[in-house]
Amino acid sequence: MKRFTQGSVHQVIKCKAAIIWETGKPFSIEEVEVPAPRAHEIRVKIVATGICRSDEHVIHGLLSGSEFPIILGHEAAGIVESVGEGVTGVKPGDKVIPLFMPQCGKCVYCRNPNTNMCVNCSIGKSEEPKDRIVTFMCKGKQIHRMSNISTFSEYTILHESAFAKIDAKAPLDRVCLIGCAFSTGYGSAVNTAKVQPGSTCAVFGLGGVGLSVIIGCKVAGAAQIIAVDLNKTKFAKAKELGATDCISPHDYDKPIHEVLTEMTNGGVDYSFECIGRTDSMVGALQSSNFGFGTTVIVGVAPSTDKMAIDPMLMLTGRTLKGAFFGGWKSKDWIPKLVSDSIAKKFSLDELVTHTLPFEKINEGFELLRAGKSIRTILTF
Amino acid sequence: MKRFTQGSVHQVIKCKAAIIWETGKPFSIEEVEVPAPRAHEIRVKIVATGICRSDEHVIHGLLSGSEFPIILGHEAAGIVESVGEGVTGVKPGDKVIPLFMPQCGKCVYCRNPNTNMCVNCSIGKSEEPKDRIVTFMCKGKQIHRMSNISTFSEYTILHESAFAKIDAKAPLDRVCLIGCAFSTGYGSAVNTAKVQPGSTCAVFGLGGVGLSVIIGCKVAGAAQIIAVDLNKTKFAKAKELGATDCISPHDYDKPIHEVLTEMTNGGVDYSFECIGRTDSMVGALQSSNFGFGTTVIVGVAPSTDKMAIDPMLMLTGRTLKGAFFGGWKSKDWIPKLVSDSIAKKFSLDELVTHTLPFEKINEGFELLRAGKSIRTILTF
Repeated sequence: MKRFTQGSVHQVIKCKAAIIWETGKPFSIEEVEVPAPRAHEIRVKIVATGICRSDEHVIHGLLSGSEFPIILGHEAAGIVESVGEGVTGVKPGDKVIPLFMPQCGKCVYCRNPNTNMCVNCSIGKSEEPKDRIVTFMCKGKQIHRMSNISTFSEYTILHESAFAKIDAKAPLDRVCLIGCAFSTGYGSAVNTAKVQPGSTCAVFGLGGVGLSVIIGCKVAGAAQIIAVDLNKTKFAKAKELGATDCISPHDYDKPIHEVLTEMTNGGVDYSFECIGRTDSMVGALQSSNFGFGTTVIVGVAPSTDKMAIDPMLMLTGRTLKGAFFGGWKSKDWIPKLVSDSIAKKFSLDELVTHTLPFEKINEGFELLRAGKSIRTILTF
Repeated sequence: MKRFTQGSVHQVIKCKAAIIWETGKPFSIEEVEVPAPRAHEIRVKIVATGICRSDEHVIHGLLSGSEFPIILGHEAAGIVESVGEGVTGVKPGDKVIPLFMPQCGKCVYCRNPNTNMCVNCSIGKSEEPKDRIVTFMCKGKQIHRMSNISTFSEYTILHESAFAKIDAKAPLDRVCLIGCAFSTGYGSAVNTAKVQPGSTCAVFGLGGVGLSVIIGCKVAGAAQIIAVDLNKTKFAKAKELGATDCISPHDYDKPIHEVLTEMTNGGVDYSFECIGRTDSMVGALQSSNFGFGTTVIVGVAPSTDKMAIDPMLMLTGRTLKGAFFGGWKSKDWIPKLVSDSIAKKFSLDELVTHTLPFEKINEGFELLRAGKSIRTILTF
């Protein structure tokens, strides 16, 4: 391992991580080697990490650019273990959230107020930046990383653009959700759609992201929030968080967009697809008002799937948008969202249905597949 | 004909009109009967009318909701001949532009500042409002209308929500373009996309609408306007109107969106599809910047065609929009656009390549099909 090390405090750490060795296989808990942080990197002890459907997509080879073996996980919170040369503003012991959407602060995207992308973002790219490929080794093999962060590991390496320091009071087994599900959903409502007071909203899919959209719509002052899911066991929680109506497509003999259009006298002001199915993305678009509705794509679909959109749906005046991570410039905003959470502007507790020890990661994914969990938090 | 008439000045008029009797057939110039205007209607003598690809789509049965026999034409200017009961603000002799996108001023859409749709708009609906179906009769048959206006006729009937009174000084053989092509293109840039000063734009398709988008981008202060068309004979005019670069997909051995992405270091700020092809709509979307680009669908595609969009194109931060008639609330804005034209804020002359007598309408459509015309104006 050709790697810069900074004296005796920076040693390779041997620790547990969950590896997917091949497409479709279960997680295997292995001992991995995590090198010392190089310049502009930190090494973090992960304390809590959530299970997200995007991880599941990678397991099944449904997201392009993923290579195996890989360590997944991208929604987490942890504590800085050691700090590489040149990293400022953070020290061992500080609490941080890893950023799958980094913010270098210097690139053309970071300097543009209309996007939260960053040139360092790995999403949609087939390779990690060449200068920091090697982070995990197991059984003599290099293990690939997910979104440059890989949080299904006791320790991980983060580039200085890929973590946010957060309040020392933050409960890590809750604010880890600010690393993905909560911020993605909440931001989709308040940033991407810019939901207005008194408006009507439809939310397709009541997982952790969809429920967080509901929280965002409620905070933004929506008058009607219609939750849509096939799984009615999720309706109680949706109502608790702010949904005014909950409907299942199984209860109607016509397409759900027709039901929503009738319920709202012409279509909702804002619709959100939080499932990751291209057919429901089109349904969400059709559910929005033909003259002025906005639809936000939030869910991540398998990468070969396409939305088949009648252009007339756009020509009458609809808007289709999307954003990763709810449009938040991550390093700037995560600390504020954590503070808002501590100040009880919103609650994360309702999103967590299960907490499991890290070793039970496969059980956690089974809960996801069975539709029994909202968010499962793995703790170390 | 059960029809309200208002005294002796309101008689049925017999005049010439161009009828498409069956899908795919040429226009047939026929004598038609145009009834007297009923309450809240006017009868207008058409002076000039343009030829648009949307008419061509209807001829070939490519737009849903069209029935035959039909009188097409939706881009025109004329003079009020008579006025039905209850119509205010207009009198015989006044110049008007018919509105294929009406503005009743009362409906939920007209009262919403974020759309220019109106409940009286026939687009996408299979029937005209039942209380004013009968307008043209020929050989004992009722002839269908296009978008409730049908301007390929010496005289036509317009509902009070479907015309705008314009300046008496307006040259009708030019401002007729404000009835469709010019306003659609220009408004797509300044209203729908809201092109910002210093930005980069790509315009797919250099017909009358695409060239009007270029005019709009230039008026809005775009720094780079890239015109895209397979037909290079249109490049000179595009440059004259403001295009900084003109490219043909035939000159490259890679997809044009890759060319545009390289030319603009990551994709344009705004792209416009003005052809009406779903593959180029997707190309326009791919050409826009992945983090903050906006694509506007302007062209009208055959109604069975779908855009096959990778949702990842949206998730990185793009916006897809669309609007009929450039987003202008028609009755409010057409008089102002006509005044801007008279004041030479923009020129319409460059859009007109041919002027033909109405009887040569089939020749005008042949010019369109052959790609030899930008806009052909038919005069009576």
